[in-house]
Amino acid sequence: MAKSALTLGVDLGGTNIQAGLLSAEGKLLARDSTKTKADEGAEAVLKRIVKLCDGILEAAGVDHDDVAGMGVGAPGALDVSKGVVIEAVNLRWNDFPLAKKLGEMAEMPVVIDNDVNVGAWGEYHAGAGTEGQDMLAVFIGTGIGGGLIINDRLYHGHFFTAGEIGHTTVAAHASIGRRTVENLASRNSMVLLIQKLIMSNHPSWLVEATEGDLGKIRSKLLAQAVKKQDPLAVEVVAHAAEVVGIAIANAVTLLSLPQVVVGGGLAEAMGDGLIKRIREAFDRHVFPGELKKCKLVASKLGDDAGVIGAALLARE
Amino acid sequence: MAKSALTLGVDLGGTNIQAGLLSAEGKLLARDSTKTKADEGAEAVLKRIVKLCDGILEAAGVDHDDVAGMGVGAPGALDVSKGVVIEAVNLRWNDFPLAKKLGEMAEMPVVIDNDVNVGAWGEYHAGAGTEGQDMLAVFIGTGIGGGLIINDRLYHGHFFTAGEIGHTTVAAHASIGRRTVENLASRNSMVLLIQKLIMSNHPSWLVEATEGDLGKIRSKLLAQAVKKQDPLAVEVVAHAAEVVGIAIANAVTLLSLPQVVVGGGLAEAMGDGLIKRIREAFDRHVFPGELKKCKLVASKLGDDAGVIGAALLARE
Repeated sequence: MAKSALTLGVDLGGTNIQAGLLSAEGKLLARDSTKTKADEGAEAVLKRIVKLCDGILEAAGVDHDDVAGMGVGAPGALDVSKGVVIEAVNLRWNDFPLAKKLGEMAEMPVVIDNDVNVGAWGEYHAGAGTEGQDMLAVFIGTGIGGGLIINDRLYHGHFFTAGEIGHTTVAAHASIGRRTVENLASRNSMVLLIQKLIMSNHPSWLVEATEGDLGKIRSKLLAQAVKKQDPLAVEVVAHAAEVVGIAIANAVTLLSLPQVVVGGGLAEAMGDGLIKRIREAFDRHVFPGELKKCKLVASKLGDDAGVIGAALLARE
Repeated sequence: MAKSALTLGVDLGGTNIQAGLLSAEGKLLARDSTKTKADEGAEAVLKRIVKLCDGILEAAGVDHDDVAGMGVGAPGALDVSKGVVIEAVNLRWNDFPLAKKLGEMAEMPVVIDNDVNVGAWGEYHAGAGTEGQDMLAVFIGTGIGGGLIINDRLYHGHFFTAGEIGHTTVAAHASIGRRTVENLASRNSMVLLIQKLIMSNHPSWLVEATEGDLGKIRSKLLAQAVKKQDPLAVEVVAHAAEVVGIAIANAVTLLSLPQVVVGGGLAEAMGDGLIKRIREAFDRHVFPGELKKCKLVASKLGDDAGVIGAALLARE
């Protein structure tokens, strides 16, 4: 496919499907979304993707034949080279030949990659990625995911699982169980920690804000609590930033990376304050010397990273 | 240069220079070593390398013109693409154009790389590396070094410092100061920890074995103490193995690696017992699933890894 062609990008999640049409110049010409409804089965999901994309093409006034291909970011474990979703729990798919099936139905070439990887690819090419040919993207939300670009290519690794920085360990003695970065610093983990601390009588504005239903805490509320200088929220977020900063320092030390992009729902809600704290921990732990020059910045594309990255992938 | 050519490999250390001639079939035809004597200056060191190599060629009965080139593993920070040693503290070199200068003196093409990287390259091509196109090598000795092969090539990273697994952090709350893997698990760190524990009245056979001069502890003595089931030595080594195992699990989780090779003076002295302990920690911490299939094995080439890897590098 030509580097400059029009392509479609699809961000396929367990709940929603987002899609967009990317121009040769890298602009989103049109964008729309729909529910995934995974329980209706794979065929129904594929039909919804095709219908969504047809609507986008119509809205943009672009003919089907002028589109060079479609890229899809899918959740779970993928065999990218074969275009197969090995296992996607929230779609209930196993060994599903997504690229082939969707390609037949959409009547265009389809390439697929992991949803986190396409987000990283979007940021690398059209977002915050500006330095050199290697990049780590870290997305902090409900969980913590990561994508790696090495030598100007998405890097998948031997078992197609590369980038899982959320499953690395930086504080081996932090508590019992799996003491991964995700288990210490994702939004879910932060909320659990806040619940635990409030149960042991730490006061917090969050009790009032959630009317005692702490399960209601989402990224925006947590960000609000930090802004209000709620001591508990500040401490929990600072700890999470420290853990993420060390994990990023480890990756940069191992791979000698020129840039790291931090995104995801929690990071976006928290803004520059979180990036600053992550940077402080990074600076304390990275291998001293040149690596301090590594850029560590917030993502630029936000929610569009997946759609744009997937569409860019279809240009290859 | 032809893939099958005769090449020279040089392992340039702060104390010793090792060199060897590698056959087209990957056999070391001859091998020798000499003192580095870095205090005599760079020119003198280069002359010693050339003299050493000339002697090796003579011993092997090989003509200078039949050698396709020389690979050198050098310590410190290198710009591999320019063939320059940026800084090598123990050689007292700064911005030294090693490849060019040595190439002129030896009258053959010279390529250089980091000493740890050439060791990793040797193990990857001619040693314990057998799985796929990606590999991490970890060398445990006085310090802890690492080298990465990604997509069948030595990976240097943007700042030419990739592979520094010894400078990653897996136990952020372990003690004050930089809490890196090297600071917790290298031979030096283990000896310091043993000294500290003995000072606080932990009994150990090592007091008797060193006649109280614990600074005498080297890898072989430590291995002997573990073999004798000296409780202090066993505990210190087990802790170090845990730390290294977690660091390796982090690297494999991030990079989805099919294989890890563990070498270095301490690892060789300790043998399979150490690998087994590292593997146990690895299994507890690696991202569950396919990554448990990652091979984790002892190095095969021992001291020859550097020389063989450097010679292989000269084939490129």
